[in-house]
Amino acid sequence: MALPQKHFKKGSAKPDIPEDGKLRFFSMAFCPFSHRIRLLLAAKKIPHYNIYIDLIERPEWFKDYSPLGKVPALQLAGIKDQPTLVESLIIAEYLDEQYPEPRLFPTDPLQKALDKILIERFIPVVSAVYPVLTCNSKAPPDALQNFENALDVFEVELAKRGTPFFAGQNIGIVDYMLWPWFERFPSMKLNTEQKYELDANRFANLLKWRELVAQNYAVQTTALDVQLHAEFQKSKTFGNPQYDIAFKAKI
Amino acid sequence: MALPQKHFKKGSAKPDIPEDGKLRFFSMAFCPFSHRIRLLLAAKKIPHYNIYIDLIERPEWFKDYSPLGKVPALQLAGIKDQPTLVESLIIAEYLDEQYPEPRLFPTDPLQKALDKILIERFIPVVSAVYPVLTCNSKAPPDALQNFENALDVFEVELAKRGTPFFAGQNIGIVDYMLWPWFERFPSMKLNTEQKYELDANRFANLLKWRELVAQNYAVQTTALDVQLHAEFQKSKTFGNPQYDIAFKAKI
Repeated sequence: MALPQKHFKKGSAKPDIPEDGKLRFFSMAFCPFSHRIRLLLAAKKIPHYNIYIDLIERPEWFKDYSPLGKVPALQLAGIKDQPTLVESLIIAEYLDEQYPEPRLFPTDPLQKALDKILIERFIPVVSAVYPVLTCNSKAPPDALQNFENALDVFEVELAKRGTPFFAGQNIGIVDYMLWPWFERFPSMKLNTEQKYELDANRFANLLKWRELVAQNYAVQTTALDVQLHAEFQKSKTFGNPQYDIAFKAKI
Repeated sequence: MALPQKHFKKGSAKPDIPEDGKLRFFSMAFCPFSHRIRLLLAAKKIPHYNIYIDLIERPEWFKDYSPLGKVPALQLAGIKDQPTLVESLIIAEYLDEQYPEPRLFPTDPLQKALDKILIERFIPVVSAVYPVLTCNSKAPPDALQNFENALDVFEVELAKRGTPFFAGQNIGIVDYMLWPWFERFPSMKLNTEQKYELDANRFANLLKWRELVAQNYAVQTTALDVQLHAEFQKSKTFGNPQYDIAFKAKI
């Protein structure tokens, strides 16, 4: 049974999700933090139901699943009390422990800690790119520069690690946790006046990495087209986010 | 060798830390997030050097250890490249895996995820109590009410768990991660006009829990007196935090 492909909003009737124990994944189609979990569900081929949530007008019943109204949220419907997990990194670690094939977090406690710290250090990039991505006309003039400075950390770290992926020879948790933003960056070319792209010299390693990650199965299965991202960002800037255009291509 | 008991600041010479492989713990004596790690180092009896950092005027050399200038920071001096860990919850999980005696995180992936989410849900309490703790005269009139509403989650959760500690019959990670703020709450009685205390009925379970946790070895070893907390908060409010009064009692 497929659930309706739409974002549920205030007033939407609660969807009739089968009680078959399958995971229930609550997300917003364009949310990069949700995308992190979508990638892991795809990489590990974990069966689940998708329930999409309108983040401007959340349906009243959503707080029964995610008390703070947050996405991504993952309800473990097959477990007693059907608990819901939130926070992308916590969900990711749970999924990796519960569905270890393929293992994505390092098993060494130190490397795991260092990778989690690196993932947390991406938050300044997320904050810095936000006004640029959303083509916010009130973006401070140094927004792009702040974004590039924050991103330098990852260019330097990748060079330091000296491997094709952050995780090593194969894709791993850092790669998947950063990817959603790299899928969205090219939309800046369409949405900014100066047709912004990452500088080929300054971000040489990251750009090579991007080519490589783009070929990954989970990345391809969960990908949304750059035009769609650009269109969504624009609609968001104008205060009327068009969540459901995510399903355009598939309808 | 004992390092100087003072907070290093801008212009302070870099301390001469022995190269004996012992952990190096960078903290601010009154910082509750640093206190989380102090508790774990005590509970697990892990030898370490304490280096205290003035958070208003950080010493220039501190960025060599913690690039974002954050405390708590834990340098693993006995490991190749001497990496530094930051983020209290990431450090805590690393310590628990590397020094498993006593084990503080649940080993079950689901319970571990739920406990981490619960710890993250304490952040609204931290934000809400901040203006009250610092006796900030600009605190919004509903600050206390916001604080109590945020704290309700934990009163309810403790009742739901039905155990003396959040972790069960014995103290565990949630208990230690919340404790630093409960050590500081009583300072509100000294610093607020209305001599604020947690309501004995509304927070009956949490108050019983507080009595119990207060008897714990690590909690007692790392405790600072309520008068000192109150004095520090006051000095902070007046824009001149007196970090070094932490060592008063011990000098």
